[in-house]
Amino acid sequence: MTDQPVVRVSIHDLLVTDLFRFEDERGAVLHHLRSDAPEFTGFGECYFSEVFAGATKAWKRHRLQTQHLAVPIGRVRFVIYDDRDNSPTRGMLDIVDLGRPDAYYRLRIPAGLWYGFQCLGARDALIANCADLPHDPSDNEIVEPKDSPIPYAW
Amino acid sequence: MTDQPVVRVSIHDLLVTDLFRFEDERGAVLHHLRSDAPEFTGFGECYFSEVFAGATKAWKRHRLQTQHLAVPIGRVRFVIYDDRDNSPTRGMLDIVDLGRPDAYYRLRIPAGLWYGFQCLGARDALIANCADLPHDPSDNEIVEPKDSPIPYAW
Repeated sequence: MTDQPVVRVSIHDLLVTDLFRFEDERGAVLHHLRSDAPEFTGFGECYFSEVFAGATKAWKRHRLQTQHLAVPIGRVRFVIYDDRDNSPTRGMLDIVDLGRPDAYYRLRIPAGLWYGFQCLGARDALIANCADLPHDPSDNEIVEPKDSPIPYAW
Repeated sequence: MTDQPVVRVSIHDLLVTDLFRFEDERGAVLHHLRSDAPEFTGFGECYFSEVFAGATKAWKRHRLQTQHLAVPIGRVRFVIYDDRDNSPTRGMLDIVDLGRPDAYYRLRIPAGLWYGFQCLGARDALIANCADLPHDPSDNEIVEPKDSPIPYAW
């Protein structure tokens, strides 16, 4: 079972991949990441980020860690900005909405990209992340939207 | 940051470990599994199992795969039964309830144990699993509760 890239994005190395869902009258089974996925480069940590209705968490950037994100609950808008020195798509911005039933995708955000996310709709959302490295505070850069030059207003 | 075993269970090798939660007015960040956890033995697959209010999924056993389960949404009762030939706790049964805020724990179910789960309360629940091997149908054994000799009535 190989997952297929499904949504076109502008930023180099940013990847949106369709994920399997098995519907069941007792509740669905939802894939996230397998070690035999073409884009799998290692496991460092799995954690969840809850995003309450109307809330935004932005902006964040990792020097080394790559994110593999899925949204099993609710709906979330991800905004990703490429400010990498040597990227062929430097200056590009992508907006990717994730959530069931129509957009149950995995979003791969490679190291070096700025990203943030916002809960869409009235339901609290849950994001799951399988990162390729365990969390390390020194790998993390956080900038408040008001202090950021990223060309996107939440 | 090392996670600490927190709930006493009867079955040999079954482990319930406290997990970090970072509360935030926009939504919490919830740990699940890191590659430097003492019990981490490898990453095979991360997936989610939704359990609707009142629903039960049981029974299941894996020959090789070890489960690392957390319940970020809702409340779930896990029942685990030891039928392993050479286990020092053969015939023992454990019941472990997981859910926030008081029981945000990781449940490690080693290969060879029967287990099932049920959503408690009125809210649909979500279980996340970081298994040490990717899903393989030939590793899976499923028995309906009515056909099972396990001494527990759902």
